[in-house]
Amino acid sequence: MNEALQSIIPPEKLEELVSISRKIFLKPKEYFIREGEVPKKFAFVFSGLFRYVYINNKGLEFTKGIIAEHQFISSYSAMISSKPSHFFIEALEDSEILQIPYDKWSVFLKDDIFWVKLLLKSVESGFIIKEKRERDLLLLNAETRYLNFLKDYPDMQHRISQSIIASYLGIQPESLSRIRKKISS
Amino acid sequence: MNEALQSIIPPEKLEELVSISRKIFLKPKEYFIREGEVPKKFAFVFSGLFRYVYINNKGLEFTKGIIAEHQFISSYSAMISSKPSHFFIEALEDSEILQIPYDKWSVFLKDDIFWVKLLLKSVESGFIIKEKRERDLLLLNAETRYLNFLKDYPDMQHRISQSIIASYLGIQPESLSRIRKKISS
Repeated sequence: MNEALQSIIPPEKLEELVSISRKIFLKPKEYFIREGEVPKKFAFVFSGLFRYVYINNKGLEFTKGIIAEHQFISSYSAMISSKPSHFFIEALEDSEILQIPYDKWSVFLKDDIFWVKLLLKSVESGFIIKEKRERDLLLLNAETRYLNFLKDYPDMQHRISQSIIASYLGIQPESLSRIRKKISS
Repeated sequence: MNEALQSIIPPEKLEELVSISRKIFLKPKEYFIREGEVPKKFAFVFSGLFRYVYINNKGLEFTKGIIAEHQFISSYSAMISSKPSHFFIEALEDSEILQIPYDKWSVFLKDDIFWVKLLLKSVESGFIIKEKRERDLLLLNAETRYLNFLKDYPDMQHRISQSIIASYLGIQPESLSRIRKKISS
């Protein structure tokens, strides 16, 4: 079993989790969750890369999150509310994940404080990331956001396309080129 | 004790909570938490109205959230990370709150699944609200956002100023006037 999971979950608990889960492989551009689908599953990323992406009615993409190995992926709000997901979860690289069915997982939460605390920690860290991102979009200009992106995701500019980076920063690809030229000169 | 709290917390648990908390009154424009302060407390709003507000280096305000009675207020990310708050929590009306010290509250979380679950539910609903707001800002135009605001907060346009509503919608007050004129005609 994966070391990253072992570092946050003790062996007997990990066994419980693995007993309801299965390992899945996804190729780049495959979706783990589609917009409009009521999510019945979430996953832990062993290796690979994903993004959460909104597509508006004009076909424009907004990358709302980038999730690399050793993190959970889920369309969480939709999943816990049994509502259709508003975004896609798309693999950007060959990825190996542990897929966990939400209904079986929910049973763990009924009376085991360990799982409730682990979930709380995950939701909290999602909340912290969301809050930082909201702040950046509201308060910082595009150039500063790009510099922060390079700091927060040091290797990511080689793993994902410039157009995805632009859609994550909330700017047009042309604006990103201009910013990159300005920085490198 | 307040009925709204009684509806989510059973009597013996509520007693625990009340034993560490105290009732506080705030006037309009008073801050419950200031930007730059490491938050050591959160609160339940018995009555009144609050907003979370970022102020950028040019003095411009961005209202990131509006919180009315029967909800919790906190600069949560900062509080749990022991870091300075990035935003202010400001009273907009005469408000009565139950102020809860974070250190004493944290003790409840150590081994009582009731409190951990209650917290999880609160963080989850914060997460859902945040996700909806992010989606609205990314995908909808200002007019649709304003119409949604009127739907989500039916009485709020009489409780808060137009400039705060504009700063919540992420637009200039002049743009909000234009939108209001267009709708009413």
